[in-house]
Amino acid sequence: MIMLTKEFIASEYQKIQQEICEAIEKVDAKGRFESDHWTREEGGGGLTRVMANGNILEKAGVNFSAVHGPMNEAMKTNLKVKDAHNFFATGVSIVMHPNNPHVPIIHMNIRYFEMDNGTYWFGGGIDLTPHYIVPKDAEYFHAELKQVCDKFDPDYYPRFKKWADDYFFIPHRDETRGVGGIFYDHLSEDENHTKQDIYDFSIALGKLFPKIYAKLMAENSRKTFTPEEKEWQFIRRGRYVEFNLVYDRGTRFGLYSNGRTESILMSLPQEAKWFYNRRPEPGSREAETMNLLKKGINWVAK
Amino acid sequence: MIMLTKEFIASEYQKIQQEICEAIEKVDAKGRFESDHWTREEGGGGLTRVMANGNILEKAGVNFSAVHGPMNEAMKTNLKVKDAHNFFATGVSIVMHPNNPHVPIIHMNIRYFEMDNGTYWFGGGIDLTPHYIVPKDAEYFHAELKQVCDKFDPDYYPRFKKWADDYFFIPHRDETRGVGGIFYDHLSEDENHTKQDIYDFSIALGKLFPKIYAKLMAENSRKTFTPEEKEWQFIRRGRYVEFNLVYDRGTRFGLYSNGRTESILMSLPQEAKWFYNRRPEPGSREAETMNLLKKGINWVAK
Repeated sequence: MIMLTKEFIASEYQKIQQEICEAIEKVDAKGRFESDHWTREEGGGGLTRVMANGNILEKAGVNFSAVHGPMNEAMKTNLKVKDAHNFFATGVSIVMHPNNPHVPIIHMNIRYFEMDNGTYWFGGGIDLTPHYIVPKDAEYFHAELKQVCDKFDPDYYPRFKKWADDYFFIPHRDETRGVGGIFYDHLSEDENHTKQDIYDFSIALGKLFPKIYAKLMAENSRKTFTPEEKEWQFIRRGRYVEFNLVYDRGTRFGLYSNGRTESILMSLPQEAKWFYNRRPEPGSREAETMNLLKKGINWVAK
Repeated sequence: MIMLTKEFIASEYQKIQQEICEAIEKVDAKGRFESDHWTREEGGGGLTRVMANGNILEKAGVNFSAVHGPMNEAMKTNLKVKDAHNFFATGVSIVMHPNNPHVPIIHMNIRYFEMDNGTYWFGGGIDLTPHYIVPKDAEYFHAELKQVCDKFDPDYYPRFKKWADDYFFIPHRDETRGVGGIFYDHLSEDENHTKQDIYDFSIALGKLFPKIYAKLMAENSRKTFTPEEKEWQFIRRGRYVEFNLVYDRGTRFGLYSNGRTESILMSLPQEAKWFYNRRPEPGSREAETMNLLKKGINWVAK
């Protein structure tokens, strides 16, 4: 039996990064993920992989990191621990921005955290941000997530789907970021799940990611688009920037804790736009999308 | 003698808004500031004026607001007051984004706040964000600010200049937003200044703004620019977005306190770009600008 050490988890997560990059390069058929190794002064480092100007993807980042070091007082207070002095964190974090406005933006993150007092947890999520919401794609996306969740716990999908609705939300716009997905945090063993189960769940999500996105890339990138649709994409990307910089906990924690800025902000699109008070025309496809940027839509039951 | 009531201050600030819009329209010679009146459910409202697609200015916003209402517990805790129940706040807030990368971005804010326990204060600032730093423009800008400051207090300029260096700073980039300017907050009467003095200082800044920016617009908009310089402008605007969404207190307070989103985010540029780990070539004009995005540069003494 393989021990689920932090080193083992980190090395398996790094393999997930590699698998995802290979699978996405294959579908893109032009872009290549460049590699940037970096180290962190206080301990550990990472491998940032970025594709620019692909066939289907304009800008895509797949970041792996495994960092460790002493916990400062702010961190201890924040985590409400007194008996831990060192932490270890590893994860894979992905954001992909396509050229074609009919291909959705996608995000995935799987992560593992432990402290030297023996406490650990897993966190993660996947969410989809179509510039134009296509209900059948959202249904497919959620059905795939549900299928993987259901293998581990029938409560996972409804619980984590709601968590994503609440997390990927932009209060100042009263809009969800996209069609949601799943989000989970602070998962550790309990009466129903071993550490192995939760780890396996994160790996299953990592394996699911390229399958889902390859399909959405391939199918939607064939569609033609107008300059007006491209403009709408830039506006929707503006909302993505707003979410990431104003609310996203990972982004803000990274920026405030002296993380590697270029790896954190690789989630931002290459190009985004803001127009004062621009509203889509009633009845337009843009207005239809706005109407679906709401919490609580049950995509799977449809 | 005119009493400095909140109503008087608000009405004079609104005149400043009007004067600035008229002066800037004249220099732009094409763009017009559209008007959007809005009201706030809890009390008060504002007038947002926005120019889009001007000759010199691509996107410019001049916002006036005068809002009031009950203070909630979070506000009281934040301000460390127990004996106040209602607040009043008025101000003018400006951000202008030009078409030509050789014209700098500018920001100004003057504001007044009071509570029903009799406490009040003034705050504000002006700062300049050139895409390409031109030392003689930065010197002119700071000399004009110093001249106005010196009329009120010889300590104002050095104190408020340092405050701006510290405030308009992007820690995760280790860069200042631009060449700084002045920033002040919580100014109220003391042994050396009456309320009238501080109010007069804010009005003097409001009058100075169009003089300074008219000159910088007129002189620099004649310069030609290349597509590469335009691209650099989009990247520098990306930093402006990062500052405003991650750090700017006014923006974050507004977004978190259910302010009028479109008026708050009119500060964002029409178009911004992010490229992974893009660094200017050593010795280039872009690299020269990066070298000047530092705290503590004494522009006036030069």
